[in-house]
Order: sequence, then C-alpha cells, then structure tokens
Amino acid sequence: MELLKQRIKKDGIVKAGNVLKVDSFINHQIDIELMNEIGKEFKRIFSDAPINKILTVEASGIAAAVIVAQYFNVPVVFAKKSQSINIDGSVYSTKIESFTHKRVYDVIVSKKYLSPSDNILVIDDFLANGCAVDGLIDIINGSGATLCGVGILIEKGFQDGGKRLRARGVRVESLAIVDAMNDETGEIVFRH
Amino acid sequence: MELLKQRIKKDGIVKAGNVLKVDSFINHQIDIELMNEIGKEFKRIFSDAPINKILTVEASGIAAAVIVAQYFNVPVVFAKKSQSINIDGSVYSTKIESFTHKRVYDVIVSKKYLSPSDNILVIDDFLANGCAVDGLIDIINGSGATLCGVGILIEKGFQDGGKRLRARGVRVESLAIVDAMNDETGEIVFRH
Repeated sequence: MELLKQRIKKDGIVKAGNVLKVDSFINHQIDIELMNEIGKEFKRIFSDAPINKILTVEASGIAAAVIVAQYFNVPVVFAKKSQSINIDGSVYSTKIESFTHKRVYDVIVSKKYLSPSDNILVIDDFLANGCAVDGLIDIINGSGATLCGVGILIEKGFQDGGKRLRARGVRVESLAIVDAMNDETGEIVFRH
Repeated sequence: MELLKQRIKKDGIVKAGNVLKVDSFINHQIDIELMNEIGKEFKRIFSDAPINKILTVEASGIAAAVIVAQYFNVPVVFAKKSQSINIDGSVYSTKIESFTHKRVYDVIVSKKYLSPSDNILVIDDFLANGCAVDGLIDIINGSGATLCGVGILIEKGFQDGGKRLRARGVRVESLAIVDAMNDETGEIVFRH
C-alpha cells in the first residue's frame, strides 16, 4: 500500500535492535484518516472472504482492528493480556512472546466470543517473528472457528514470521513489507 | 444515551463487587455500530468545544476513542501502561490505580504528542473512582494542553469519580450513569 509505505518513509524512525518506531501515526498517536485508508485496502484485499469477525490482541492492534471492522461491518474481539477479574473462567488461552517488550504474556479470549461458525480475519499492526499471530491462530483453532486470513500493517520481512506462516498455508496480507532497515542512515527498504 | 442504556440493560451483567460486565459489546467484543452511535453522540455533546485531539488509556479505551475521533476528525493518543523500549525517555508519566485489576500502573505519553496548543477530549469506557481520568488530567496538565472535557461511556454514579471531577470544574459527560445495581437480581438503575 503506497500511502502507508510513504508515511513510514516520512515518519517512521529506525532504531537499533531492528526497532521501527511508527508511534506518531500507528501505535501511540493514531492517524485516523490513514487508518480508514488501511480499512478500505483490507476490505478490497479480503473482499472474497466470508469474514464475520475480526480478532486482534491488545493494545496496539485494537485501533486498526476497529477501523478495519467498519468496512466489513463485523464485530471486533480483542484478546486480553493476563487474567482480568472481569473475564469468566471459560476462556481460550495461549502464551505470546512480545518482541517489543521482551516478555511472555498470557493471552485470553472468552469462549463466548468465538465459535465454530466464525470466519476470522486477524488484524495486527506488526508482524515480526509471528508470535502474536501464532497465539491468535492457536486460540482460533481451539475455538473451532475458521481463519480466513491475517491482515498486517507492517511486516518485518527480514524476520521469519511471515515466511513461516505462509509456509503453513496461512493467507498473510501485509500492506508494507520492510526487507531491510538501517538505524545509522535511517534507510528503509520495502519489498515490491 | 437511550441506545446505550438499553444495551446495558439487555447485555450487561452485574457481578459481585460492583462489577458491571459489558464485554459482549464494549471491552472484549466490540459492537462497531454501537460505537459509531456513541461517536455521533459525543460529537453532538461537544460540538461547541475546539477539540483537536482525543486522549485515552490502553487498552479498553482505545476502541471507543478511535471511533469517536472519526466524528471530530482528529488524531487519538493513547497513554501506555508501563515503560516500553519503543518509547523515548521523553515522556509525561503518572500512576493510575485500576479498579478492575486491583493494581497500580505507570502510564506514559510521549512529549511529542501533547503540547500547549492542544485542546483535549478524554475518552474512556468506564468512570468509577476516577483514577484513570485523574491520571490523564495529570498528564494533560504536565503538557500545558487544555482539557476540554471528559467523555465516558458508563459512569458508576455510586462511586465518587464523577462527583469529584465535576466538583473540580471538569466537564464530565457520561452517556449512561448507573446509580445502583444488584448482583442478585441483575437490576441496573440509571440516573435520568
């Protein structure tokens, strides 16, 4: 998606340790207009899929997921990190290792909100090693729902998550794939 | 807001300990259509305010904030819980005690995303003892930005957050104020 790539080139900041900061427009401050264009693009890409629910994981996936959901006219479910007293015991759960935070989270979805009749689009802001998506697929599989595809805003093509998921047969659609970046020059190379 | 009150009566679940579960439509699964009606209502209520940014706190405030932001045509900033390696050192920070999770979070906003020229609408799903809003106001005050008001989906009128904030002169607009609820009968009494 050209608009997103251009915005990443303009406002993304490359940091040491393969960190790409996009917190001025995606995951701390959110450019709602850009998110709407992203929503339209995912609807175009997945227009053939019978999606009836969008699944993401808190916190940074939520903004994209709810805007995207408007174009599919479906509800969003977000997986929650760690047990909350507001969640019943009846949950699907998995563990997700966060690349950003260098820790492992317990992630849960109430059994009430996923069922075998659901056709799920997973939405997340980043795909790097794929741990978050692995966890969400785990939860989807546990529920008997069908995974229609995974929509990612920014894939780090130099990490193996996307490659591994596609090799498993998962339909992964990333709006921008970064194949290389350099924290000294700030250069970001996108896959064409 | 009649639509929201009706939905709370229909799908909200009262639990012991003054817990009102609305996770089937607000903060686990999200009804996007309802959120859009909520966005329109806040735009109507705050149409006189020169709002140029919406501030919320992760995670459950994000969904409402981004949908509401569409009606104001402004960006959203969400305060983050705990230090992330993706946040620069230059942050406004405060502590927020969560009623739901019974713990204290460090909450931060990058100094890049709040400035004295900002006119802020705070959005959150719940207002109970008001700790989250206190924290966000703390951050706004630290930045020199102006607080235009606080938009809440559900206020627990039997806890003192709303009363305390209004006594401080903060404009608090809650779409549904619950004055009493009973976890044995499931009854929910709204303020008129």
